[in-house]
Amino acid sequence: MFYQYLFNMDLIEQITKRAEEFFSNSRGSHDWEHTLRVYNLCLCIGRKENANLKILKISAILHDIGREHQDKCNGKICHAEKGAELARKLLSEFEIDNDEINKIVHCIETHRFRGNKIPISKEAKVLFDADKLDSIGAVGIGRAFLFAGEIGAKLHNKNIDIDKTEAYSKEDTAYREYMVKLRKIRERMLTEEGRRIADERHKFMVEFFDRLNKEVEGDL
Amino acid sequence: MFYQYLFNMDLIEQITKRAEEFFSNSRGSHDWEHTLRVYNLCLCIGRKENANLKILKISAILHDIGREHQDKCNGKICHAEKGAELARKLLSEFEIDNDEINKIVHCIETHRFRGNKIPISKEAKVLFDADKLDSIGAVGIGRAFLFAGEIGAKLHNKNIDIDKTEAYSKEDTAYREYMVKLRKIRERMLTEEGRRIADERHKFMVEFFDRLNKEVEGDL
Repeated sequence: MFYQYLFNMDLIEQITKRAEEFFSNSRGSHDWEHTLRVYNLCLCIGRKENANLKILKISAILHDIGREHQDKCNGKICHAEKGAELARKLLSEFEIDNDEINKIVHCIETHRFRGNKIPISKEAKVLFDADKLDSIGAVGIGRAFLFAGEIGAKLHNKNIDIDKTEAYSKEDTAYREYMVKLRKIRERMLTEEGRRIADERHKFMVEFFDRLNKEVEGDL
Repeated sequence: MFYQYLFNMDLIEQITKRAEEFFSNSRGSHDWEHTLRVYNLCLCIGRKENANLKILKISAILHDIGREHQDKCNGKICHAEKGAELARKLLSEFEIDNDEINKIVHCIETHRFRGNKIPISKEAKVLFDADKLDSIGAVGIGRAFLFAGEIGAKLHNKNIDIDKTEAYSKEDTAYREYMVKLRKIRERMLTEEGRRIADERHKFMVEFFDRLNKEVEGDL
């Protein structure tokens, strides 16, 4: 009843269309394409883990719709919690069971795994893994440098003091992000298939940053 | 007479100190660290090619001092030509033979290899190779994404129309830069050692972008 032109589209397509509207001012490192990559990964992992694909697809599409709220206030709002709230409202416009909405909201509000928001269901675990996997491997490397460019940070500093350098500062680098966060991601995977993909992406990422350090010194 | 506190520093250190001042507002993708990496590469290549290291070191340190002039006017000024002019003025403050100054100026003004500014001397060829090598390999990948972030561009678009997408636009990506420029750099090397390093860095870069495309599709 809200989107007459969407009458011929299936449910997932309709929700996708609505979700994309939340990304009109997004940054390249957290844009709509990130959502599409997470969606692809959710399908790969979800099939192996026998997850409910309807719940998983909708959760993946909507998982970051609260992102711009978080970016606008420098992180004071949690995009997972805000996204869960926005998703519940949005989904009430469609013909979806309340039980299914609750399952989707659980996936979205726990996909950061912060505080007491812990992924419990299989679908929530798959979404968490897929979202984190997009931060490592070649994609993760690209995103880390893109983000450094967005905030006006440096290309590299091999001798960076990891404990003293602040994220979002001019002295920040993709390498700090790698040392502090990215290289620890594979240990956090919650599904078997997620771990398998993470191990493979991790290996490539280690190789990349080893190379980077050698190239910078003129050794390669 | 200009920098009393520099009296105890050797010539290269003094020029380095002066050169760094030209980078106070530089972007991460073309910052002072780029100059230091090019300097390291010049030493590696220059030693193998039996280049005059004094000429080469000073040329490497000064090669991008015109960069901010080019950035400020969106490319209307050529940073190589402006840099050569600034370098000649700067070097006149030091005790360097006029013949040496001419050799250094030749390296700087031809390091872009544009129009009729062609690297003729061995040192100019080494500087050209070193500068281009910093655009490929792991460093080159990082710089391409960092630059995309600086101009507010996207992370990736595998299906980008290379002929229609404009550099510096929001639709630009590191991948376009790779397809249009970076993957052709190894063919442009002017020294044997430059070609050897370029072949090795090229191989890794091809592997990276192949991986990136597969990861984005959810295949890895």
